[in-house]
Amino acid sequence: MSADRLSSVSKKVKPEGMLLHPLGTAAAPEQELLCIFGTGDFGRSLGQRLLQSGYKVVYGSRRPHSCGPLPQGAQVTSHEAAAQSAGLVFICIHRVHYDFLEKLAPQLKGKVLVDVSNNLKKNIYPEANAEYLQRLIPGACVVKAFNTLSAWSLQNGPSDANRQVFLCGNSAEGKQAVAEVSTKLGLTVLDKGSLSAARELEDFPLQLFPEWRLPLRVAVGLTAFFFFYLLIRDVIYAYVEQGKDISFRIMVSLANTVFPIVSLIMLSLCYLPGVIAAFLQLYRGTKYRRFPDWLDRWMLCRKQLGLVALGFAFLHVLYTLIIPIRYYVRFRIAENTISQIKENKTSVFDTTLAWRADSYYSMGILGFGLFILLGITSLPSVSNALSWKEFSFIQSKLGYLTVFFCTFHTYLYVWNKFLRPSSYKWYTPPAYLLCLVLPSLLIVLKLLLLLPCVDRSLIRIRQGWERNDPEDGSANALLP
Amino acid sequence: MSADRLSSVSKKVKPEGMLLHPLGTAAAPEQELLCIFGTGDFGRSLGQRLLQSGYKVVYGSRRPHSCGPLPQGAQVTSHEAAAQSAGLVFICIHRVHYDFLEKLAPQLKGKVLVDVSNNLKKNIYPEANAEYLQRLIPGACVVKAFNTLSAWSLQNGPSDANRQVFLCGNSAEGKQAVAEVSTKLGLTVLDKGSLSAARELEDFPLQLFPEWRLPLRVAVGLTAFFFFYLLIRDVIYAYVEQGKDISFRIMVSLANTVFPIVSLIMLSLCYLPGVIAAFLQLYRGTKYRRFPDWLDRWMLCRKQLGLVALGFAFLHVLYTLIIPIRYYVRFRIAENTISQIKENKTSVFDTTLAWRADSYYSMGILGFGLFILLGITSLPSVSNALSWKEFSFIQSKLGYLTVFFCTFHTYLYVWNKFLRPSSYKWYTPPAYLLCLVLPSLLIVLKLLLLLPCVDRSLIRIRQGWERNDPEDGSANALLP
Amino acid sequence: MSADRLSSVSKKVKPEGMLLHPLGTAAAPEQELLCIFGTGDFGRSLGQRLLQSGYKVVYGSRRPHSCGPLPQGAQVTSHEAAAQSAGLVFICIHRVHYDFLEKLAPQLKGKVLVDVSNNLKKNIYPEANAEYLQRLIPGACVVKAFNTLSAWSLQNGPSDANRQVFLCGNSAEGKQAVAEVSTKLGLTVLDKGSLSAARELEDFPLQLFPEWRLPLRVAVGLTAFFFFYLLIRDVIYAYVEQGKDISFRIMVSLANTVFPIVSLIMLSLCYLPGVIAAFLQLYRGTKYRRFPDWLDRWMLCRKQLGLVALGFAFLHVLYTLIIPIRYYVRFRIAENTISQIKENKTSVFDTTLAWRADSYYSMGILGFGLFILLGITSLPSVSNALSWKEFSFIQSKLGYLTVFFCTFHTYLYVWNKFLRPSSYKWYTPPAYLLCLVLPSLLIVLKLLLLLPCVDRSLIRIRQGWERNDPEDGSANALLP
Repeated sequence: MSADRLSSVSKKVKPEGMLLHPLGTAAAPEQELLCIFGTGDFGRSLGQRLLQSGYKVVYGSRRPHSCGPLPQGAQVTSHEAAAQSAGLVFICIHRVHYDFLEKLAPQLKGKVLVDVSNNLKKNIYPEANAEYLQRLIPGACVVKAFNTLSAWSLQNGPSDANRQVFLCGNSAEGKQAVAEVSTKLGLTVLDKGSLSAARELEDFPLQLFPEWRLPLRVAVGLTAFFFFYLLIRDVIYAYVEQGKDISFRIMVSLANTVFPIVSLIMLSLCYLPGVIAAFLQLYRGTKYRRFPDWLDRWMLCRKQLGLVALGFAFLHVLYTLIIPIRYYVRFRIAENTISQIKENKTSVFDTTLAWRADSYYSMGILGFGLFILLGITSLPSVSNALSWKEFSFIQSKLGYLTVFFCTFHTYLYVWNKFLRPSSYKWYTPPAYLLCLVLPSLLIVLKLLLLLPCVDRSLIRIRQGWERNDPEDGSANALLP
Repeated sequence: MSADRLSSVSKKVKPEGMLLHPLGTAAAPEQELLCIFGTGDFGRSLGQRLLQSGYKVVYGSRRPHSCGPLPQGAQVTSHEAAAQSAGLVFICIHRVHYDFLEKLAPQLKGKVLVDVSNNLKKNIYPEANAEYLQRLIPGACVVKAFNTLSAWSLQNGPSDANRQVFLCGNSAEGKQAVAEVSTKLGLTVLDKGSLSAARELEDFPLQLFPEWRLPLRVAVGLTAFFFFYLLIRDVIYAYVEQGKDISFRIMVSLANTVFPIVSLIMLSLCYLPGVIAAFLQLYRGTKYRRFPDWLDRWMLCRKQLGLVALGFAFLHVLYTLIIPIRYYVRFRIAENTISQIKENKTSVFDTTLAWRADSYYSMGILGFGLFILLGITSLPSVSNALSWKEFSFIQSKLGYLTVFFCTFHTYLYVWNKFLRPSSYKWYTPPAYLLCLVLPSLLIVLKLLLLLPCVDRSLIRIRQGWERNDPEDGSANALLP
Repeated sequence: MSADRLSSVSKKVKPEGMLLHPLGTAAAPEQELLCIFGTGDFGRSLGQRLLQSGYKVVYGSRRPHSCGPLPQGAQVTSHEAAAQSAGLVFICIHRVHYDFLEKLAPQLKGKVLVDVSNNLKKNIYPEANAEYLQRLIPGACVVKAFNTLSAWSLQNGPSDANRQVFLCGNSAEGKQAVAEVSTKLGLTVLDKGSLSAARELEDFPLQLFPEWRLPLRVAVGLTAFFFFYLLIRDVIYAYVEQGKDISFRIMVSLANTVFPIVSLIMLSLCYLPGVIAAFLQLYRGTKYRRFPDWLDRWMLCRKQLGLVALGFAFLHVLYTLIIPIRYYVRFRIAENTISQIKENKTSVFDTTLAWRADSYYSMGILGFGLFILLGITSLPSVSNALSWKEFSFIQSKLGYLTVFFCTFHTYLYVWNKFLRPSSYKWYTPPAYLLCLVLPSLLIVLKLLLLLPCVDRSLIRIRQGWERNDPEDGSANALLP
């Protein structure tokens, strides 16, 4: 069907008095031509995607006749010819080979060059790849873009997180052109400013869980500390003072003491910064002053702190559940039964102990169940489906309920053990007392914040009221 | 690089006979200017996002020189000047401060005002915020939009669920203008009609799990009923009739009876409406009549019913697995062993009992495994990746398999217990019999639907055939 | 507010020297009209979505006055009138009713016809529905599109995976027109080429987990093999040689031997193709030659192999944790205790055995914990949020750690059992020896690849170096 026929149809219909979109009459049949330098994985995937989205693609190649399989429908020609034929050139080449582009400067003059490159390591070059490219070909307008996308996601269609294209460049027109192509590929554009932001963009794909670093370091530190603390107090103490070798307990008993301790501490660390921030706002009487840096960093890794705590809680559950299949436990139970018979004792059933033990397990299970629920709602696809009010209800209300259940579970475990002098081996407090400090503090502080008078002040501050506001403070937040 | 140079490049290239997209020649360099009233969290995040997407932004402020940190690149000026400079004004102000806008009516006349506001509670004002704004400034065209987005999601780039922008307004041009901005921000627009829909939009962010209410109420009701039923039949009965205090069993034994019962009933409630709907369609002989309201509501919360059932099943599994570490259980086992020795009995291994017990556990595990699988496939990101055929295979075929495993698991538990007169304490049936009613009914009804003759009729009806169709029924559905 | 007033506002503002977007001045008020044939579920949902996105919609109907509930705002008229009024017609009709379209050929001439139909089964017609439609109305340009979307996702707004629209058709203008509509609905377009691709598109929604087939077949095959192998060696052997009926062990003991064995083998099968591919690249000295087909297919189902293995590991964990509540186990433990007392033996605590048993459980738990982590990161929404570097760190580094833990767990289980002649019943090796072959091989091969010299060669090859490259090989990959 030719464009003419289509537009003639349009004319036929209009007299009926209905509005008609001029179907492909003007610009549609002209498919835009884009150029790609480089036929590596990324170049090929990008070309295929561009073709599928309705662009024409020409590859620039050193050896146009032997450059391996290219997407169907793409043309291949020399670098010079390819550069001249299109206004926008994707440079899908490693930085080490950029120098050959210098001699193409006349052909590339005035073109938009899209630098999609990444490096293998941070800080190996003095300047960003895109800045280097701009220096080589000053007449072109270089735009850094697409480097956070993978060839794989280009081929398979973008999904959620990898739909974002970060742009930067010195020319607004260049960025606009790249933004249009991105939008047509189904991607979302975020402009990061001038070309000096290129280094930041090039560092993105080299980051390895930046927001997980601090929580993981805290977890490793706490685990190591409590492991050695318990090793000394339990295993080495037993060996030195009683001459018993109970080293086999390292694998399960010790691990199953360290994991719940670290989990509870990290769970409190996850909710503590929110409480501290609230007290800081109350003290300052305004929400408009920035938090100190350490608090900001702490607030930003709350989700990760919570998820690491969940991981440790999960291990604690598994370690607890295998207790009855352990050889050591079965041996001790049989030994007890046998000794009861031999000494002809009859032990009496202790209802209080049964209540306490069962409550202890019940609290643990309910706390773990809620914890799992928190974990599920922090999955990106689930939290995205929640409104802000729902998300904050779960992460705050249910979060504190989890803290309460888990802390209560630990208190029921401790019970009156801390009264026994035998708990203070070598004059050190038992580990379970150490781990209760933070969660208890957190619960006390949170209860203080829930006092009606404190709560009211906090809500006012968070709605924009300022204690030291010279004018009418309530309107300040929104109408300054 | 100037736009001129770019277009001259374009001209140079064209003679080579290739098509060229006019790179930013015409409209691109003119960045559109948008105005934002209000410098709160939302105003700032919106401004930053607009700047990143290539817009110019001017803030209107009461005190342009002291209004706190604003996104880099934005201008600030008085409300009057800001309003005049742009055709589209975002009103990021709380409703209580709207009145000052009245005196800006001349400057705002003919402008598109985007009302992004939300209230803290439902029904505190007689009219929607957007309608109030329209009444204050009749000369402007007010569009309600963006109120379901959070400042956070604007800053961090939208993802899946929060990519939707709901619009409403009386002016098609106004809505069109807002839709264009939204699309450029990477958002998807859904037009909800005239400004009278504003109240509905303003209630969206105030909802707290609306679709979870009914299932949670059912769960709480069932849990409470069975808890008290079991409390009376087990704990109070033992105390009254036998004088024994077994109240400690509340924490684990009782809980572990209530949870599986509620889980099984809710699982049946999840699949029952589908079966009822099928019978209703068979009875009516058409799929084109609406279901009664109660059935519609029930159908709409099936997913939630299933997930709540999964939560209870999860608790049941944990409560079951800690059985052997309980003090009570260990005491009873030791007691049994000791009494066997003292009375010098030898108990004989019962192969039938071993078969039954092991089958009982095996069915439970397989049912729970399938249940977890159903839960995972109902995660938004997983179900979105499935085709409709795959989703219905899992949720229907595997769903009924889960129901079957779980019901069979319960039957194996009951075995012949229901024959013993001692099960009918105080003339009441045991709880496990009560909980088997619904799943048994569901399985019988489902088996009826699977009979070849019934199945065939149902498939015909669902493809659009109508029993009472005067004309050729088969074509009716699609060519009316 | 009229468009005139808006543009007059624009003029008023311009003198202030700010840029202004011509708000809906030119094209905006003209809403495009689209036509839909068919008022079934899909037609209605599509119409509603089009109306919400700012289009006008007219339905073509056989009985315009009695065609059931249609979206508010849509018009209904005869097929002829509807077809004439719009340039683009969605054909939401089953293929069996296409023949009536033939007499509309004059009205449909030159129009873009969008075929959205699907079939109930594969290969029931000799040609694709869209090709058949094109043959019926040769004067129209048929575009196959939208058939992979469901009515449900159109109504509720598209999310991630169902945002993709696959197009094909012989007319570039037609495809362009459909692409524009799709983009306006918030969908992403992927062009699959000419109309001959229609059959492929029509087969999409009929596929049932195509990428899961091979892994599930392998799982079923392995499960069946090991089930019968163990049935013969354990149950039947005991019956034939010792006359004991231990058939009750099928339900739990046997299942709990089959599941971990299959899980470990499938986990190795998930990582084996990566190692084989690496050796193949080393042997060939290039990454540019295609892998053999069997390896390609194997590589493509690695994720599914791993997830099936995780499912089996999950069942293994549950089956292991219920061991202590089993009747059989409790009976045996009591029996042991009683016999110890009667024979007045005192068993001695074996520290080595305690170490080994506890390490065995610990390795299993850590392996399972890591395995769950791998499973979570393979959820679409989680893996999308990871950069490629992060994803490959988890799936490769942590993946091999999982393999190591699980294999070590099995070795600790085997210990020196394989030395006992009684393990080789009927001259067959025990199942745990069979299942260790593949993971051991995998670990050895992986360790070979980690040798510095081998690792260096592999990295060079993967960066594009070729051993047999006549020219400077290093530049070859990117600048051919």
